[in-house]
Amino acid sequence: MRFTKMHALGNNYVYVSTVETQLPSLHLAELARRVSDVRRGVGSDGLIVIEPSDVADVRMRIWNADGSEAESCGNGLRCVAKYAYEHGLVDTGVFSIETKAGVVEARVHIDCHGRVPSVTIDMGQAQFGSSAVPYTGRHHGDDVPVDIGGVDVWGTLVSVGNPHFVSLVDHVDDDDVLRIGPRIESHPDFPERINAEFVAVKSVSEIDFRVYERGSGVTYACGTGACASVAALARKGMVGNQVTVHLLGGDLDIELRDDGHILMTGEAVTICDGDYIV
Amino acid sequence: MRFTKMHALGNNYVYVSTVETQLPSLHLAELARRVSDVRRGVGSDGLIVIEPSDVADVRMRIWNADGSEAESCGNGLRCVAKYAYEHGLVDTGVFSIETKAGVVEARVHIDCHGRVPSVTIDMGQAQFGSSAVPYTGRHHGDDVPVDIGGVDVWGTLVSVGNPHFVSLVDHVDDDDVLRIGPRIESHPDFPERINAEFVAVKSVSEIDFRVYERGSGVTYACGTGACASVAALARKGMVGNQVTVHLLGGDLDIELRDDGHILMTGEAVTICDGDYIV
Repeated sequence: MRFTKMHALGNNYVYVSTVETQLPSLHLAELARRVSDVRRGVGSDGLIVIEPSDVADVRMRIWNADGSEAESCGNGLRCVAKYAYEHGLVDTGVFSIETKAGVVEARVHIDCHGRVPSVTIDMGQAQFGSSAVPYTGRHHGDDVPVDIGGVDVWGTLVSVGNPHFVSLVDHVDDDDVLRIGPRIESHPDFPERINAEFVAVKSVSEIDFRVYERGSGVTYACGTGACASVAALARKGMVGNQVTVHLLGGDLDIELRDDGHILMTGEAVTICDGDYIV
Repeated sequence: MRFTKMHALGNNYVYVSTVETQLPSLHLAELARRVSDVRRGVGSDGLIVIEPSDVADVRMRIWNADGSEAESCGNGLRCVAKYAYEHGLVDTGVFSIETKAGVVEARVHIDCHGRVPSVTIDMGQAQFGSSAVPYTGRHHGDDVPVDIGGVDVWGTLVSVGNPHFVSLVDHVDDDDVLRIGPRIESHPDFPERINAEFVAVKSVSEIDFRVYERGSGVTYACGTGACASVAALARKGMVGNQVTVHLLGGDLDIELRDDGHILMTGEAVTICDGDYIV
């Protein structure tokens, strides 16, 4: 089976295009588990299958390393866009990608060799507050406190398709993320759990960012979290509409368009092309 | 750079043949670190370079994921043998491989498709006792006790090129390996540290095996440890000269030849071939 391993901010998947290779006669959940295993497989965070779409230019499906199917992934979307352009699955630099979470628009940035070092994804609009996020606490408004061991930790409730709790801090502290992050993520006020972001404003165009991702824990990069954080801070007037977000795995550039759409730009990197022996 | 990822009992490396591809102009230690990184590289336990030898049929050099160069690796040797035969670097099924620890003989087993599912490596002869292994304790003989928290844990001192302390147990217990293994490995009686094996005899031809490897901790497979363990048990008359060793990562078949040489047979598996973008 032909495959390409790519990463974006260290978030790495095995990408397989059904136009270019035949999938093995295995459940894709099982294939994802096998290719993701670094001991006996390629080694990755999961498997992404790129295939034709009835409603967009290409379609992506994504499985985690444990075989569970995910809805979407900002880092994966950028790599899918790079792959689709470089492999001629699309013939323009702006095109649409179907995911289980809906259709998004991608714009590839092309270097002088015709390669795509970075991609912009239109992540849609953010929604704020207790009406936008599954929340059963007693408070109302965009910002709510959650009780962590008797101390109120305040954060902004933001949805960008998935739910976020964005806490403003003076400095991002990896120990705090590990200590408080899981208690926010699984707090009883959030019946479907939540992604917990910790952000520090360095200037109107630059923030530091850490995340405790719902179901995954501390990760190197969370595209939706970066978008949610910039949207929350811009609503408070603390940042402008062009912000560089420093994540553990690298930087993302977030732009808030006048119509409220959030444009996320970041790297997409090919590691290797290969033939996987099933 | 063309590469092949292979594993043997889950011990996995990126293999590069200088006959077939040009190495990038990078320090190989740095290349090893990059390809081994599962986030931004292929993902592996390290890098093995296969090249022509002045003293043997092929030569292997091995770097760990942290960039340190290793002397040899039984699992790696089997994969090098498979690679050398399947890629036509040798034209017979029995040939020699140069390593930093010396030259060893390999015999490939060939299936009806001309592929090599398993390989036998001549691991040489074992040596026993406090004269064969760096040991500064007060005892003499093949078997010595080490004081672990006031309790004497007995084991056989064996060298098969590297040093081993083989403890006989009723049943292998992963908790014991984690609890006692590191205290043996770094015990003051062993000034160069030691590999700590825990073995349970199931029959004269079958043993269970766990290892706390010097510098690596619990690993899925340790070929020299399996050889050392069978040699130690055979010397006590507890096993015969053909023994299947059950490791965490799978089985190895160990044969003790009449001249004292230890022949180790086990799997060698190709995961993928690819082009790595340096």
